[in-house]
Amino acid sequence: MSIAVGLVGTGVMGSEHARILREDTPGARLAGVCDADPRKAAIAGCGAQVYSDPLEMIHSREIDAVVIASPDSTHADLVMACMAAEKPVLCEKPLAITAAQALAIVELEMSKGRRLVQVGYMRRFDPAYRLLKQSFDSGEIGKPLIVHNVHRNLVAPEWMTGSMSISNAFVHEIDVVRWLLDTDLATVRVTSLQKGDPLVIEMTTRSGTVITNEINMNCQYGYYVHSEIVGENGVASLPAMPSTVIHRAGQQVLAYPTYWVPRFMEAYKAQTKSWIKTIQTRQAYEGASAWDGYVTTAVAEQIIEGKETGEIQLTLLSCPSFYA
Amino acid sequence: MSIAVGLVGTGVMGSEHARILREDTPGARLAGVCDADPRKAAIAGCGAQVYSDPLEMIHSREIDAVVIASPDSTHADLVMACMAAEKPVLCEKPLAITAAQALAIVELEMSKGRRLVQVGYMRRFDPAYRLLKQSFDSGEIGKPLIVHNVHRNLVAPEWMTGSMSISNAFVHEIDVVRWLLDTDLATVRVTSLQKGDPLVIEMTTRSGTVITNEINMNCQYGYYVHSEIVGENGVASLPAMPSTVIHRAGQQVLAYPTYWVPRFMEAYKAQTKSWIKTIQTRQAYEGASAWDGYVTTAVAEQIIEGKETGEIQLTLLSCPSFYA
Amino acid sequence: MSIAVGLVGTGVMGSEHARILREDTPGARLAGVCDADPRKAAIAGCGAQVYSDPLEMIHSREIDAVVIASPDSTHADLVMACMAAEKPVLCEKPLAITAAQALAIVELEMSKGRRLVQVGYMRRFDPAYRLLKQSFDSGEIGKPLIVHNVHRNLVAPEWMTGSMSISNAFVHEIDVVRWLLDTDLATVRVTSLQKGDPLVIEMTTRSGTVITNEINMNCQYGYYVHSEIVGENGVASLPAMPSTVIHRAGQQVLAYPTYWVPRFMEAYKAQTKSWIKTIQTRQAYEGASAWDGYVTTAVAEQIIEGKETGEIQLTLLSCPSFYA
Amino acid sequence: MSIAVGLVGTGVMGSEHARILREDTPGARLAGVCDADPRKAAIAGCGAQVYSDPLEMIHSREIDAVVIASPDSTHADLVMACMAAEKPVLCEKPLAITAAQALAIVELEMSKGRRLVQVGYMRRFDPAYRLLKQSFDSGEIGKPLIVHNVHRNLVAPEWMTGSMSISNAFVHEIDVVRWLLDTDLATVRVTSLQKGDPLVIEMTTRSGTVITNEINMNCQYGYYVHSEIVGENGVASLPAMPSTVIHRAGQQVLAYPTYWVPRFMEAYKAQTKSWIKTIQTRQAYEGASAWDGYVTTAVAEQIIEGKETGEIQLTLLSCPSFYA
Repeated sequence: MSIAVGLVGTGVMGSEHARILREDTPGARLAGVCDADPRKAAIAGCGAQVYSDPLEMIHSREIDAVVIASPDSTHADLVMACMAAEKPVLCEKPLAITAAQALAIVELEMSKGRRLVQVGYMRRFDPAYRLLKQSFDSGEIGKPLIVHNVHRNLVAPEWMTGSMSISNAFVHEIDVVRWLLDTDLATVRVTSLQKGDPLVIEMTTRSGTVITNEINMNCQYGYYVHSEIVGENGVASLPAMPSTVIHRAGQQVLAYPTYWVPRFMEAYKAQTKSWIKTIQTRQAYEGASAWDGYVTTAVAEQIIEGKETGEIQLTLLSCPSFYA
Repeated sequence: MSIAVGLVGTGVMGSEHARILREDTPGARLAGVCDADPRKAAIAGCGAQVYSDPLEMIHSREIDAVVIASPDSTHADLVMACMAAEKPVLCEKPLAITAAQALAIVELEMSKGRRLVQVGYMRRFDPAYRLLKQSFDSGEIGKPLIVHNVHRNLVAPEWMTGSMSISNAFVHEIDVVRWLLDTDLATVRVTSLQKGDPLVIEMTTRSGTVITNEINMNCQYGYYVHSEIVGENGVASLPAMPSTVIHRAGQQVLAYPTYWVPRFMEAYKAQTKSWIKTIQTRQAYEGASAWDGYVTTAVAEQIIEGKETGEIQLTLLSCPSFYA
Repeated sequence: MSIAVGLVGTGVMGSEHARILREDTPGARLAGVCDADPRKAAIAGCGAQVYSDPLEMIHSREIDAVVIASPDSTHADLVMACMAAEKPVLCEKPLAITAAQALAIVELEMSKGRRLVQVGYMRRFDPAYRLLKQSFDSGEIGKPLIVHNVHRNLVAPEWMTGSMSISNAFVHEIDVVRWLLDTDLATVRVTSLQKGDPLVIEMTTRSGTVITNEINMNCQYGYYVHSEIVGENGVASLPAMPSTVIHRAGQQVLAYPTYWVPRFMEAYKAQTKSWIKTIQTRQAYEGASAWDGYVTTAVAEQIIEGKETGEIQLTLLSCPSFYA
Repeated sequence: MSIAVGLVGTGVMGSEHARILREDTPGARLAGVCDADPRKAAIAGCGAQVYSDPLEMIHSREIDAVVIASPDSTHADLVMACMAAEKPVLCEKPLAITAAQALAIVELEMSKGRRLVQVGYMRRFDPAYRLLKQSFDSGEIGKPLIVHNVHRNLVAPEWMTGSMSISNAFVHEIDVVRWLLDTDLATVRVTSLQKGDPLVIEMTTRSGTVITNEINMNCQYGYYVHSEIVGENGVASLPAMPSTVIHRAGQQVLAYPTYWVPRFMEAYKAQTKSWIKTIQTRQAYEGASAWDGYVTTAVAEQIIEGKETGEIQLTLLSCPSFYA
């Protein structure tokens, strides 16, 4: 039988999740939608049951599993509620606002004895990142020495204030680098321009790789993500994304997407498909775990706290065998 | 309720259709599989009912719709059977071996009074071709003057003999150019190298666009399809397909796929998804119709007959209003 | 001692030759300039002697060698005059308007017993074309099957009328293909769009290679030349020309040159440098010979005469051992 | 009359200078060559006078100007000698090993009252860097926020030991960034991998631009230099360098040069040509001055001294009006 999914939050990302669940996810159906604004929920739901109380939806017998795409500050409590209801949950990043909250999720999940939480670090499902990881894992470029990341956003959305370029955007680089290199981070140093944007962030991993990052929330030209691994024997990088090539009026022109959804649409679809398949088959999760969510939030938290102080020595718990 | 699809043929393409129907097509389930070799059918079916007689499957009450991926010579009869059983059918290209067969399908479908047939010219669903058409349709490059097509295959499969580089491969260019430019073809001239491969084919459309084509079944380096529209005011072309960029041992290297499935996987998925949605919603078909199948086969037939004779003036029936 | 060069013609191309001779050609000095408009000659000459009569300059004791960049129709007579004066001459393409004129030049040069004429088919000196030829000559792509050429001009200059897109522009492709493949052409067929522009031209060589050509004098977007050799084992093509990459306002933008001089500046410099070195060292000429000039003009003449008549069987004299 | 140039040093770079002076520099002639190994000098000189004592050559009446391409440690003394002899000198980078030496050169030059010294920071003459600077100067990308530099060498030459990846290689980035942005550097921080290679270096300018640098002397795949300016309104970067595109055996392949000379050949030629023209015309120098040489050496010196100590606050003298 198909998995009945309830969705919390129908903003930009929530609406995409609704559409993906309705149209692009075999084995799933969008059975419930919840939003502070019930009209938005009804539009995104296209006939699915509308709930005004997320906890009611989470505990409903009509709902088998939950996708959380509400504001960041609500994530942790909703994930806890899903686990209390013994329901698998795919939570948009970040898993929590504080490391302590994320750790409470980790502890509850371990006490349940089985994985219920996946965090929506969708780059792990992006075809281009997957091929990059494949090349790296093949050993053809040798030991990783340096990774160069670029993360550019057209214009920061209004809700992105204060340190959110770290807690909401840079968390993608924190997660994807851990996954690409299969290692953990050791130190971070932030150089901030203008009023905090862009940021140049240098990190090192425990195995000595140096990672440079440009985090640019207002690059003014489009949405663009790049990653390049410099190895001992060669270099591997993400390809340019395909765009119709127009030659006109003295120029060759390629178009950029204006935000992340077109760039990562295949990743979002593959993430949801993988999540549903994991629920159906009880196989191992491919996506980011609650532990990954904790690590990412803990790193982001320590960066935000220490960013004025020079080099930050990261303090992270050891990964429990439950998540190894 | 989900559409129960029966699949005829589980070769290279049939196995992909089976997987797409099982894993990538919301609203569909693979309910039956038929192949001359029942073991291949069972493997592709993953539990779906195995049939040894395609007609039995086509007429079974358990089957709502049919995908045909058996050898080219069987297509026409199987499509006729599907229509007799009043079942929607997605038939791999070509629709038929002869224009006469294709025309019989067209006539039967018109007599049924509703569309039942879609032909698997999947490039119409390829994201890159769609964006190219969008650019062209926007008018930004003006009236089309020339189209340059390149269609390269690594090495011709054993079963590709005689004129099959036209009837089985070049049919894609015939179809996609009609769709891109929304016009019909007027003349063709074939220049043949070596023992018939590669071919250089020049065509003109009724509205005066000239189309150059390289059809190369043994290019020895990979699978590659390209298309460029030269307009009055500019040029638009398909992008390079993305590939991890490796810098190693003196070179920058991008990898090519070895055959068409990786290149057009998104197109195949989108085609099947669109077909199922059309069946469910009874909206207009997006894919190639039986009429498109007739035209393509008729053009291919006239090219094969006349290819030694210089310029071929194509003779095509007028499109019935049923398909307009 | 440096070679004293006299220049005939100071239009677009002549002014470039003047500058190249003055500033970029070690071993040469611009000693005389001749133009119908003596003010233009004086400007281009920057102090060199201005002549109103080209024959006076050609025969002057002050002049060692001559560059001809006057209108096409004057080339043949001026080259004959240079040979009569026993002076080396670098003549802009085409060498002559008719094959008969070109043949007369060839015959006079043979009677002199030594080479005096080089024709300005500068693509033979273009670094990108040279590397393409090197790749092809290395054998890595095997026997040539097809060559695809594209020759696009922003907007045709006013003086380009009638068949000049063949006699003045397409002659470059005629010459460069003979040089690239080291073979001669056998047949040509022209497909003409609109009022004669663009042209699609298909040619075959004596060894069976098929060459497709787009000759587009009004592409409206910039100056662009491309060439791709499809071999038995692989494909080799000219690289994209480098241009600063600008990412701005939703787009990645590369700029095109508006005409041929920036695209081929290095070729022009290398051509003149090689010509002067040949004069100084009396080594073998690297550039196109009077024979190459004859062949190219003869092919262009036969194309212009036969372009309405379908396939043209080219008739060319055999290359004398003098030029082999 | 042509400028008689004497060349000191005929190693890799000196031999190139010899060839450029002999073959590619109108207005110059290679009149003298000096090397510790007189056979090498004779080979590079192709008939020019061979000197065993550089001072003898520098002071010879037969020599008008001097190019210095001997080992780094000899540069300063030889430049001083040229100035003592009142002869224009083009000195390979670095100008001196220590800032104190460089400053002595600056002071002597100022006391002479006219410029005699140009330092061979040839990137300022590279066509790609010039176009990048042009784009930046046009204002189209706005105020510079970040510059990303990559400098990769195939394998470090044997003579490159200790801190020479800074004093001999990274000096190019120090110079080119000052020139690109027309500003001076304020701080530097070095992160060192393995045994000192590669380096990741972050710098800031006085106007607040952050510059990231990968200095990689053993990248194992080829010689590669890249630069990208991230502005307030857009991004501008160097183009990919052109290379014949080969499609073969499953791959699209572009070749890298193995060292810097092919990459920067046009820059070297343009630099020498500009230097000779400056000598002839007594116009303003386009190339790097002794002051630029001092600043670059001073920055490199302070980086080498402070590289283990975290952020380095650079201390630089103010630019005298003589060089402004």
